[in-house]
Amino acid sequence: MGGDFGPSVAVPAAIRALATYQDLSVVLVGDEPQIKALMQQAGVSSTSRLELLHTAVSVHNDSKPESVLRNSRESSMFLAVNLVKEGRVDACVSAGNTGALLLSGRHLLKNIPGISKPAMIASVPLRGVGSKAYILDVGANVSNDAAELFEFAVMGSIQAESVDRISAPRVALLNVGHEEHKGTPTIRETATHLAQTTSLNYIGYIEGNELFSGKADVIVCDGFSGNITIKTSAGVVRVIEQVLKSTAEKGLLSRLLLLLAAPLLRRLRREIDPAQFNGASVIGLQGIIVKSHGHAHADAFYHAIAQAYREASDCVPEKIATRMASLVQAPMAQNSN
Amino acid sequence: MGGDFGPSVAVPAAIRALATYQDLSVVLVGDEPQIKALMQQAGVSSTSRLELLHTAVSVHNDSKPESVLRNSRESSMFLAVNLVKEGRVDACVSAGNTGALLLSGRHLLKNIPGISKPAMIASVPLRGVGSKAYILDVGANVSNDAAELFEFAVMGSIQAESVDRISAPRVALLNVGHEEHKGTPTIRETATHLAQTTSLNYIGYIEGNELFSGKADVIVCDGFSGNITIKTSAGVVRVIEQVLKSTAEKGLLSRLLLLLAAPLLRRLRREIDPAQFNGASVIGLQGIIVKSHGHAHADAFYHAIAQAYREASDCVPEKIATRMASLVQAPMAQNSN
Repeated sequence: MGGDFGPSVAVPAAIRALATYQDLSVVLVGDEPQIKALMQQAGVSSTSRLELLHTAVSVHNDSKPESVLRNSRESSMFLAVNLVKEGRVDACVSAGNTGALLLSGRHLLKNIPGISKPAMIASVPLRGVGSKAYILDVGANVSNDAAELFEFAVMGSIQAESVDRISAPRVALLNVGHEEHKGTPTIRETATHLAQTTSLNYIGYIEGNELFSGKADVIVCDGFSGNITIKTSAGVVRVIEQVLKSTAEKGLLSRLLLLLAAPLLRRLRREIDPAQFNGASVIGLQGIIVKSHGHAHADAFYHAIAQAYREASDCVPEKIATRMASLVQAPMAQNSN
Repeated sequence: MGGDFGPSVAVPAAIRALATYQDLSVVLVGDEPQIKALMQQAGVSSTSRLELLHTAVSVHNDSKPESVLRNSRESSMFLAVNLVKEGRVDACVSAGNTGALLLSGRHLLKNIPGISKPAMIASVPLRGVGSKAYILDVGANVSNDAAELFEFAVMGSIQAESVDRISAPRVALLNVGHEEHKGTPTIRETATHLAQTTSLNYIGYIEGNELFSGKADVIVCDGFSGNITIKTSAGVVRVIEQVLKSTAEKGLLSRLLLLLAAPLLRRLRREIDPAQFNGASVIGLQGIIVKSHGHAHADAFYHAIAQAYREASDCVPEKIATRMASLVQAPMAQNSN
């Protein structure tokens, strides 16, 4: 029910996902009359693979996150996350209030043992077509200590290994330079820890201008840095659109240029726009939650469902739990030598 | 002598600046034979407005910053900053090692009373042509407390007022959202302080995607955030260039597009590229230092000189000192009521 378009986006996206993935089942949680009307419109009815869970309550996009726990336990968002908790579904996809979704997730699903704080993991496009890098945290937290950044590295690495089949993903730490002495004490401490961890392919520091260069598969940073990084990227794309448009008003050739560049810019905006980091996942919880952006259309919401499907198929949370357990045991094994 | 091109860029830039500003005098600090040869090439000789201070020593671009104080007190960089200290010049412009320049500045010029830490202030282009916003700190520091961020706001505001003749410049704090409760405790504390300061036109939080929107004239953030913000911007511009190029290889129309877009992209890169934030100034010292980027050509170096000229004409450090003194007295005045 969340986001700018509610079920008018979620329902067609779900129907499309059901057609793509023959072993997928979907539970639509929300206002039954609205959802039924949209299903009818699409010519489909409830089946064993498409269920409906009715609730008339929904979380507003601009509600304070805490209100979901206080007043909205019957909301579509809370009920959907609760389905994950009860094991009735493998993942939840929502275009609703991000803060409320994070809070519901933390409250109901709990952190994976060994994970102090869940993160939002987004992907950024790389220069080579079709390729991408993960960046986390992009906003679940505002500041993170070295232990948390280390956990982000482990989680990002597993995400890239599992979902994208990248073997030994290259993990980098976002910093203001490459030299060892650069950055905050927190970052330097994280770097030392990462460099000592043989189960991670840590490649060192990465700077802002290299995020899209393909040097790293996983970029680790605190939630504040990650958030401004991806939002700034979106801002730059908009400047470029604006400059192109103002140039285009100046002559025929320029107008032609704009015409040619329009689809390209749309693609760039779709890929880089952070407000849109679609299929951005909450990672670190004992269950899968994928956040679709609030102004996602059916296409983008479909990709968020696809992302949830892949994470569930690849058992990402379980793999993180296993890896964290092995990392905890590793120092003990060394001590016994 | 610094940067990728040394005097071959600095000398022609200085000659051009002398032609533009009739009341400007320049001291060229560096290797006399090289500089003389370049002056001869340009058909100019030493005059009362163009002096030469010889030294054979220069700071390497990749030297550790500390080495400038230990081993390079005879270097062109150290001598140039020292000219500012001795009051023999009003400003120093360098394309050399940024860390060494910052350290020389802090060592020789000292902070303006009331300023805890100098910052690097850069400008970002706004959507409207010709307009810009200041952002600070972009890398003189890695982390900053609320008092320092407040000082950045004061300094940025004076820079915009003085150099760009903006009355009551709109000051914003970089954050992950607009709501009051967003961000780190440091940011929220800074916001409270800024909102209470009547001599500043504080407009609230700004997000990464709004940096280029024209909402604010001065954007305040810690050195880590500022650094990754402007470097990420540069990275995005490069992705776009790359995508355009790969598109251009695909057909005649696309090739035409690239041809048309090339000058535009060059302009964007020049304006947004942080490695190039030309005319980025060290602000907060008792003297003016402008950093030209290492790979600046004569055009860009000329702009850095012009920036130094404007800051000196407008007495930016003195204005900061006056404002800081009045801010220190203000609470006392309130207490006496």
